[in-house]
Amino acid sequence: MTPLPKTVREVRLKSRPQGMPQATDFEIAEVPMPVPGDGQMLIRTVHMSVDPYMRGRMSDRKSYAPPFELGKAMDGRFVGEVMESKGGRFEKGAYVAGFGGGWKEYHVADGKGLLQVDPDLAPLPAWIGVLGMPGMTAYVGLLDIGQPKPGETVFVSAASGAVGALVCQIAKIKGCRVVGSAGSDEKCRWLLDEAGVDAAVNYKTCGDLEAAVAQHCPDGIDVYFENVGGEHLVAALNLMNMHGRIAACGMISRYNDADGKPQPGPHNLFLVVGKRLRMQGFIVSDHAERIGDFQRDVGGWIRAGKVKWKETVYDGLDRSPEAFLGLFKGDNFGKMVVRVGPERLG
Amino acid sequence: MTPLPKTVREVRLKSRPQGMPQATDFEIAEVPMPVPGDGQMLIRTVHMSVDPYMRGRMSDRKSYAPPFELGKAMDGRFVGEVMESKGGRFEKGAYVAGFGGGWKEYHVADGKGLLQVDPDLAPLPAWIGVLGMPGMTAYVGLLDIGQPKPGETVFVSAASGAVGALVCQIAKIKGCRVVGSAGSDEKCRWLLDEAGVDAAVNYKTCGDLEAAVAQHCPDGIDVYFENVGGEHLVAALNLMNMHGRIAACGMISRYNDADGKPQPGPHNLFLVVGKRLRMQGFIVSDHAERIGDFQRDVGGWIRAGKVKWKETVYDGLDRSPEAFLGLFKGDNFGKMVVRVGPERLG
Repeated sequence: MTPLPKTVREVRLKSRPQGMPQATDFEIAEVPMPVPGDGQMLIRTVHMSVDPYMRGRMSDRKSYAPPFELGKAMDGRFVGEVMESKGGRFEKGAYVAGFGGGWKEYHVADGKGLLQVDPDLAPLPAWIGVLGMPGMTAYVGLLDIGQPKPGETVFVSAASGAVGALVCQIAKIKGCRVVGSAGSDEKCRWLLDEAGVDAAVNYKTCGDLEAAVAQHCPDGIDVYFENVGGEHLVAALNLMNMHGRIAACGMISRYNDADGKPQPGPHNLFLVVGKRLRMQGFIVSDHAERIGDFQRDVGGWIRAGKVKWKETVYDGLDRSPEAFLGLFKGDNFGKMVVRVGPERLG
Repeated sequence: MTPLPKTVREVRLKSRPQGMPQATDFEIAEVPMPVPGDGQMLIRTVHMSVDPYMRGRMSDRKSYAPPFELGKAMDGRFVGEVMESKGGRFEKGAYVAGFGGGWKEYHVADGKGLLQVDPDLAPLPAWIGVLGMPGMTAYVGLLDIGQPKPGETVFVSAASGAVGALVCQIAKIKGCRVVGSAGSDEKCRWLLDEAGVDAAVNYKTCGDLEAAVAQHCPDGIDVYFENVGGEHLVAALNLMNMHGRIAACGMISRYNDADGKPQPGPHNLFLVVGKRLRMQGFIVSDHAERIGDFQRDVGGWIRAGKVKWKETVYDGLDRSPEAFLGLFKGDNFGKMVVRVGPERLG
């Protein structure tokens, strides 16, 4: 077995972006290989996650996650291999997932907050995707916040993304009519053929988005799963039924506004009153008590072949800024993942 | 006793407004005195209500209440006297409140949906105000939608209005810190001295609204009772605490947009996600099961001297369009009421 390297790489936040982040806002640094102490493990990152919410942490602004510090390594979810354990929570050779190893090749941890990964249920990247935070976001967002009833119509924006694709499939499992929007014909095709939605709209080519969505929602929209904001939210508000629910998971079209020039909100927000809509924001980490239900249900659906997923994998830690920036251009098809190292070292 | 007149007057919708309604959108017509049949009553309107939601009914657009018909009398809540009963639900001489007698001097009804009024508990106009629909709107909107807990901070826009003033007082009774905004120093004075709020902001003279509200909400806002939209909503979103609730009762600043030039929505609506806010629209008529609780609680608070209210009374049916239009300029201080006739005919 190859000996471990003496130095390892990490990606640091170099400058705080104004508006859309640039590659120059990141820098790669080489640091000494970390050494685990008693009760700790050395963990090698295999895959790391880049997610839209990280944009918020790049700004020096209080949000639900603390800002990344300038000149320090960024963080995010990872799945990795325990290379050495000095009495940490997991044994050498185990795969684990959680925070701490994002944007880094190696790190040291005691294992608190990490989850053991079962590579027989699903390949490693799935544990930061459909079986990880994006999957659980879809699960609690749709079921606990959106609360769809069988026969209702669910509209999902960014429907082929890591969260949206699972939202679509859970909504189908729960007996809903499901309409998704995505940014390419290929993504729409996947939604129809693999995810099993009732209709898919390519928002980039459909012309009038509201008219295109309306055509596929003859009974209106009961639950809108909001990932996008902007024109999608305007269309959804107009098409929502009385007592409809908007599960506000994210508004990716707005994330780069905050530090730049803010875009106006939906001019038809007043419809919330007359239609008695409930728009509710949520953050998956508030719903930790649901992790057992989530793993049981989604694990079961995966075993039963009822849930499919897609990943876009960028290879190499040095491509992680590129992967992250690609999220805002829709370059990902499904979960955006960076492969930091091989599944097993040769 | 004076004999009843042969003809009576009603206010009709003459044209559908584009943007802000004009006096010329209304016309007064004279019609024969209606005659009650078996099982019916003749009811004389004493006071009628004008309310912001009526703006929606002037447009030919599906909403929670059907549009007013062109060339026909408008309707709204009234309180009136039963002049004659041919076996209707109430006896001659009783006072009743409900729909059917708004914008009219007399009408005929069987009494279904009408409520008997107790003039000993509160004067007649209160039955279309603090003890009527606006009062019940405040009650269910604050308690069932906003769900304030003791010690939380409640921010109320249009706080001296028919709904807002009761919201402020119920929130105080429930042990909250209460900050209200209103459009004159006189209204703010009343909020402080009579309604007992902790702070009042004159939004017309305070300069930076958000800064002015923030100064009085050192612990942020937990519940925003939304009557206004626009700049108030932007400020509230910025000041809301995690897991805050926005009870969306109305957005009066937007009601005249819909048929005119729509104004943009709040640019910071994305905060709903990170702060896990719940913004929920509601319509009082969905909450009819709460009327017993409302009458018991608010009636009790009135008897105990814990609830005050203000009315602005315009005298004469012909002034009803003027009273209605005044709502959008903040001409009302408390409930806007039109006195259509005397309490008892001479």
